[in-house]
Amino acid sequence: MKSDLDALMQARNLDAILISGKMLGNPPLVYVLQGARLTRALFIKKRGETPQLIVNPMEREEALHAGYPVRLSSDFGYADLLREHNGDALATAVAYQRRIFSDLGIAGRVGCYGYHDQGAGYRFLKALDTATPDIEVVGEYDNDLLLEARATKDAAEVARIQDVGERTLEVVRQTVLFLQRHPVGADEVLRKPGTDEPLRVADVHAQICRLLAAHSLEDPEGFIFATGRDAGIPHSKGTPTAPLRLGESIVFDIFPREMGGYFFDFTRTFSLGYAPEPLQALHRDVLDSLEHVKAALRVGVGASAYQRMTCDFFQSRGHSTVAQDSATLCGYVHSLGHGVGLDIHEAPSFYDSPANTTLLQPGHVFTLEPGLYYPDQGMGCRLEDVMWIDAAGAVQTLTHFPYELVVPLE
Amino acid sequence: MKSDLDALMQARNLDAILISGKMLGNPPLVYVLQGARLTRALFIKKRGETPQLIVNPMEREEALHAGYPVRLSSDFGYADLLREHNGDALATAVAYQRRIFSDLGIAGRVGCYGYHDQGAGYRFLKALDTATPDIEVVGEYDNDLLLEARATKDAAEVARIQDVGERTLEVVRQTVLFLQRHPVGADEVLRKPGTDEPLRVADVHAQICRLLAAHSLEDPEGFIFATGRDAGIPHSKGTPTAPLRLGESIVFDIFPREMGGYFFDFTRTFSLGYAPEPLQALHRDVLDSLEHVKAALRVGVGASAYQRMTCDFFQSRGHSTVAQDSATLCGYVHSLGHGVGLDIHEAPSFYDSPANTTLLQPGHVFTLEPGLYYPDQGMGCRLEDVMWIDAAGAVQTLTHFPYELVVPLE
Repeated sequence: MKSDLDALMQARNLDAILISGKMLGNPPLVYVLQGARLTRALFIKKRGETPQLIVNPMEREEALHAGYPVRLSSDFGYADLLREHNGDALATAVAYQRRIFSDLGIAGRVGCYGYHDQGAGYRFLKALDTATPDIEVVGEYDNDLLLEARATKDAAEVARIQDVGERTLEVVRQTVLFLQRHPVGADEVLRKPGTDEPLRVADVHAQICRLLAAHSLEDPEGFIFATGRDAGIPHSKGTPTAPLRLGESIVFDIFPREMGGYFFDFTRTFSLGYAPEPLQALHRDVLDSLEHVKAALRVGVGASAYQRMTCDFFQSRGHSTVAQDSATLCGYVHSLGHGVGLDIHEAPSFYDSPANTTLLQPGHVFTLEPGLYYPDQGMGCRLEDVMWIDAAGAVQTLTHFPYELVVPLE
Repeated sequence: MKSDLDALMQARNLDAILISGKMLGNPPLVYVLQGARLTRALFIKKRGETPQLIVNPMEREEALHAGYPVRLSSDFGYADLLREHNGDALATAVAYQRRIFSDLGIAGRVGCYGYHDQGAGYRFLKALDTATPDIEVVGEYDNDLLLEARATKDAAEVARIQDVGERTLEVVRQTVLFLQRHPVGADEVLRKPGTDEPLRVADVHAQICRLLAAHSLEDPEGFIFATGRDAGIPHSKGTPTAPLRLGESIVFDIFPREMGGYFFDFTRTFSLGYAPEPLQALHRDVLDSLEHVKAALRVGVGASAYQRMTCDFFQSRGHSTVAQDSATLCGYVHSLGHGVGLDIHEAPSFYDSPANTTLLQPGHVFTLEPGLYYPDQGMGCRLEDVMWIDAAGAVQTLTHFPYELVVPLE
């Protein structure tokens, strides 16, 4: 968590960290700036010291909301440097950064973070490393300091995720009520009230958008409400023209966030009116698997063990899995879950590989989302809850919503 | 524009380009994937050839909406490579990328784009360059190929920006009507109808949020509705507790986007009921400056000339400007405008420096937003229109909204 930054710097032998870029689409910067809404910023922290923020003078007051000492970018004379370097933007950026390092007394190993175009970051950090003999520019490829800090949530972060969760579940409840308000034709297709027009996936999508907005939730990743065969393709958003029909699997996976902040992630599988026996069996297997893995969650156990457990479980029920064939498109075709925070997918990962050495620990907030997919049989099923391991190491669910497959219609 | 990709590759002597990363917060990838909503993707294009898309099998159907041939990441055996490299994520990523290059027959100079953590991008591209003797990894620091392509909009892009613009102006109109619905106390403060409670900036912010949602607009950068002294600080969002008071400058700068797509950008300065003479004079100077620069816009003229023109104009009216003191906080303190597209700030830039060699050209869509700021006098004023230079080179405004300062109340 954020209070671990110094310890994480120490473990990496970093003397300072620098997080930069635009704020939009930049979770590492959002993480350290929470409370301030800036266009762009430079966050610099020496190990053991208070961070400093360097911002455009236009944003000098907004920047104070981050709670750190604020310096103005104009203090470092970018415009003069640009003239000195005859308009060479790269040379100017390097000179400007060196001036900041020198002013703040930064030397040694400096970890550089924040989202940028990768080609630009490559050019800039290479040039900066060459131009600063007293500084070693450090880039981390995997499980970097910020990702590791963000993997465990403090109480304030959990409260925000819970708040998004409550609003998300309300959107789902209202969506179910919306479906239930529609009459059914003799052909088992839902109708728009008072007409012979079928209710289509596009209509439900539009209603879900309205409900998200009404609950002040953003949906930057685009929810899934997919029926029939589409439900058998994990990330199909659903076919807009498809009519809503009784007895078809509906995968409803919705993962909104508070404005610019924390995500939630929720999935249920529904069937309107009734469910055919093969879909009931699929749902039973997925629910059993979810309950099986939930009951086994323990602090200190490797996350990848739960992916293996889920594969074993589904294989024991006769389904093929990614453990047998990593390219399979039928059966259990993905990973068990993922951390949820400022990114919809973040640490901890449940990927089953020797590279995944993550052990479950207090502060982890993550999804469990087993699923089974049979597009050729026109069906799929996924169930997803968000779990939190609290400070005492107890496993808690942040998702309180029934698992019932069948949505009764009048 | 998108149809220029091959010419832009040729000008940079690039044999191929690669755009990668998560889609969220990654405008270069959004630009080439329009129509598909994916979690992440790898876009590869050889010069003169059709692009290819490599995606997770879970997203194989969504990916088709981008309109390119789709390959599955599982075809390139990431899981096997990870085992071979004993779980070393960086070595695996390099080996995986090399396998893709080899499979697609890519060699020579390869431009690498797409948003990533800069430290991760640095490590990855350095390692990739070292591991591929037949490939030169090219990173661009400034005005890169994608930014240059995106600087000129095609007809479909302009139509989308116009659509966002129409909805934005409707939000502004409704906000003005909302303000006008409030009675005024003897102290010249607006009241919530039927109460003695003042209407505060927070109430207006909440109403604007509702209006944005009702018009299916996202507001990821956070609009500005700032009063009095806050209006004198360009990026102050406004003080939530401040009451709405007659005769104070209100800077209303709103820059929403369609879901995950194109932005619009609009500013007017209002004063409720009446405007004191100093504020009227400020507004007159800003409006005159906007009309002065608008009338002078011509294809082929350097964008930075218009920033100089604006500084000269304001200086002739007795205001200090950034041309005299780049760190000034009073008078005209920023640049004249910026391109608008998938980023709220993109090319063309109007920054006045020798580095800015941009000439206005057909396809440019940009803001003009002169402003004057006097926080110590408790006031500020900015007016902003979006301009488009059409295919014939004619300058058009995309903002049809009156400039009136005073909002009459009953």
